[in-house]
Amino acid sequence: MLKLFYAPGSCALASHIALEEAGAEYTAYRMDLKAGDQRKPEYLATNPKGRVPALVTDRGILTENVAILAFVAQSFPKAGLAPLNDPFAFAEIQAFNSYLASTVHVAHAHRNRGYRWADNQSSFDDMRRKAPETISACFDLIERQMLKGPWVMGEAYTICDPYLFTIAEWLEGDGVDPTRFPKVHDHRRRMYERPAVKRALAEEGRG
Amino acid sequence: MLKLFYAPGSCALASHIALEEAGAEYTAYRMDLKAGDQRKPEYLATNPKGRVPALVTDRGILTENVAILAFVAQSFPKAGLAPLNDPFAFAEIQAFNSYLASTVHVAHAHRNRGYRWADNQSSFDDMRRKAPETISACFDLIERQMLKGPWVMGEAYTICDPYLFTIAEWLEGDGVDPTRFPKVHDHRRRMYERPAVKRALAEEGRG
Repeated sequence: MLKLFYAPGSCALASHIALEEAGAEYTAYRMDLKAGDQRKPEYLATNPKGRVPALVTDRGILTENVAILAFVAQSFPKAGLAPLNDPFAFAEIQAFNSYLASTVHVAHAHRNRGYRWADNQSSFDDMRRKAPETISACFDLIERQMLKGPWVMGEAYTICDPYLFTIAEWLEGDGVDPTRFPKVHDHRRRMYERPAVKRALAEEGRG
Repeated sequence: MLKLFYAPGSCALASHIALEEAGAEYTAYRMDLKAGDQRKPEYLATNPKGRVPALVTDRGILTENVAILAFVAQSFPKAGLAPLNDPFAFAEIQAFNSYLASTVHVAHAHRNRGYRWADNQSSFDDMRRKAPETISACFDLIERQMLKGPWVMGEAYTICDPYLFTIAEWLEGDGVDPTRFPKVHDHRRRMYERPAVKRALAEEGRG
């Protein structure tokens, strides 16, 4: 049985939705990041990174959305969440998700987590001020060049969609008007209508 | 024919080495980042992200090391650069590479590219001072928990190895003593001995 460790409002929602889309049997464990659950010894024994998501499998633990999403797609091929026999098409998916992980999520993290990369309050304030600009630049690229529509990769719904949805959910909180990106905004609206998304949001207390 | 766009000293070396390990036919195009090659209209028409690496294939362009490395492994299965029929083992590889892309490379980028996330010189100075500490924390985790040895994933050389090598090559320049991480340091030494690594370094002018 798979076990997903997540925190409400975190990027783990992407993996959570994918597990629902795949029809996987799993148990979801809620972490309270503000209470420091991710730094407790019992969690660090499972996931030394002290982050979410983490997916515990009978082979061991997996971390990083980019890896967990691909694992879900490959482990539940009938769900059709990625083109599994086409290295180029699969790589396009991994490229999109890797951009979300290494550039867009990172831009977002500078709004409230500047302490990861600097020590002074003035630096945190500077990063916080600039975050809406860098996040907007990312979403502008996604809107103009990357989101094929209606889903990220075109006609087929894939593991890119829950991840984009998850990060787009942060826009208002990051001080960016989501209506500036009409294709992303429409994508998000259509994601809310999916039963798997509704189930994952309900389980995370946002139903 | 594949075309790899790279810049000497950049993370594109990981994809470059993987292409050599795979025995791929490709042409390498050197970009001069200081001269702004990555911002020229002809390159942006190929890669709107304005970064390296970019791999041009007959199906289109791929970006992001995490995706390109997996593409090389899947496209040249005889090279044995990843366990292609084992979703868990493949996900472990993607998780390692995604950590390098979204956490370790990002920590490194704060040393000289603070302008991506802030506007003030004092913030850049603060990030630059802190970078050795954050980079060391990443390599400490890699050393203690992630690098199985002798290669990243154990006995089998995979697409994790050129990527770890590439980022470990930055340690001295980032003000971190590489001998603090003996397993990583030994890994790097053995990587230099591989013919594919020698060829990629030579092509990048570091032979």
